[in-house]
Amino acid sequence: MNGVKDRNIRLTVAYDGSRYHGWQRQDNGITIQEVMEKKISLMADEPVALIASGRTDAGVHALAQVCNFRTGAELSADVFRSGLNSLLPDDIFVKEARDMPLEFHSRYSAKKKTYEYRILNLEERDIFRRLYSWHIRTPLDTDNMGKCLDMLKGKLDFSSFRSTGSENRDPVRNLSRAQISGPGGGMIRIVIEADGFLRHMVRNIVGTVVDAGLGKISVETFKSILEARDRSSAGIKAPPQGLFLVEVNY
Amino acid sequence: MNGVKDRNIRLTVAYDGSRYHGWQRQDNGITIQEVMEKKISLMADEPVALIASGRTDAGVHALAQVCNFRTGAELSADVFRSGLNSLLPDDIFVKEARDMPLEFHSRYSAKKKTYEYRILNLEERDIFRRLYSWHIRTPLDTDNMGKCLDMLKGKLDFSSFRSTGSENRDPVRNLSRAQISGPGGGMIRIVIEADGFLRHMVRNIVGTVVDAGLGKISVETFKSILEARDRSSAGIKAPPQGLFLVEVNY
Repeated sequence: MNGVKDRNIRLTVAYDGSRYHGWQRQDNGITIQEVMEKKISLMADEPVALIASGRTDAGVHALAQVCNFRTGAELSADVFRSGLNSLLPDDIFVKEARDMPLEFHSRYSAKKKTYEYRILNLEERDIFRRLYSWHIRTPLDTDNMGKCLDMLKGKLDFSSFRSTGSENRDPVRNLSRAQISGPGGGMIRIVIEADGFLRHMVRNIVGTVVDAGLGKISVETFKSILEARDRSSAGIKAPPQGLFLVEVNY
Repeated sequence: MNGVKDRNIRLTVAYDGSRYHGWQRQDNGITIQEVMEKKISLMADEPVALIASGRTDAGVHALAQVCNFRTGAELSADVFRSGLNSLLPDDIFVKEARDMPLEFHSRYSAKKKTYEYRILNLEERDIFRRLYSWHIRTPLDTDNMGKCLDMLKGKLDFSSFRSTGSENRDPVRNLSRAQISGPGGGMIRIVIEADGFLRHMVRNIVGTVVDAGLGKISVETFKSILEARDRSSAGIKAPPQGLFLVEVNY
């Protein structure tokens, strides 16, 4: 190790967000970034900063978050992978580690991201899936929900589905996929793929699409909510534990 | 309420055992019995003792544990059910509550119990199922495991699969079902039904059946282990988190 951070290692990570205050380091709770940075720094024998494709909120999960760090350590990427899987708690798992060109940046280099939202649509509670789904008792009209999701495809202004805190960013995103499937074993899955996401965008979309599934609003009303470009016209934000970051494409 | 405990209420309960030191009250950790007795006593406005069909160990789950308590409270069984589901933490769920004759006893009246053991047989870890299965990386030979399980059916001496601590009880049990299915989505399920179980019996059976699945022992060796009637000849005890109490029959 020569003190020069001449390597850039990319990790693909699965995590169960239940115990964490989200991805990003913060003062008032334990985060995935913090836990991982500590263990990587321990292995690299130098302080390491971890960059992710984006934050996930408290309680949100990842099947394949992508992050990267620069280091001067000489350990192979695979030694980092297996070492981290020994050191990390059992709710974080490094699926892959590999060396990348120095210019690779998990966030800026990302071309597309895919999220899945899981709704458990059964009358009875299922305590074994409580941490990984939103339980809705009333049967949902998935046809109506699918019609709403269809409207979201393409390059659109998603202001109606963006939470406050990001007002000065461009609200236009290109949504390449918005699909509903199920219920299979009671589980409804909503998959949304886009070139980028606004704050709480998936959860705000799902909350409003569920309103259409419950018959609280019509498909036409959903259309007018989207076109209003105003967050206050949309439905509630779906709870975090149903949301999974599924894939990041580069 | 007249102070006389003239009612006997039976509950069917699902619980996620991850956070608990098992069913039975003890000094050095929180248990399901303790948490439930507190809430029932609160509702009944009198101290209540809960009897279960049997204990489950730390980390073991239940899809339908059966328990009962006597009370003088005049609340309907259904009010108990819905009230408890509001008061209890979200990893315990009362599926059913009903009045029973006074002589009903969850343990002594039980005729048959069914357990399921789940093994996740995939090379890669799945952190989202870590609390509800035993992860085994090496592909298991389920044919061989099924042959071992077949030998367990009938009225047999299960001394080889009983943990110490219950030596003076009759080791003969009548096993009416011992089945393996899967892997489906990587999950292998072993279902065992009997008129009663010795201490750690299912986990000790599964540990030894897995040895046969891994090729560490032959089906013939499994037979001789069963016939040895000696715990020390059998394999390891499977970990608790794969075990589910599925049903109790009366």
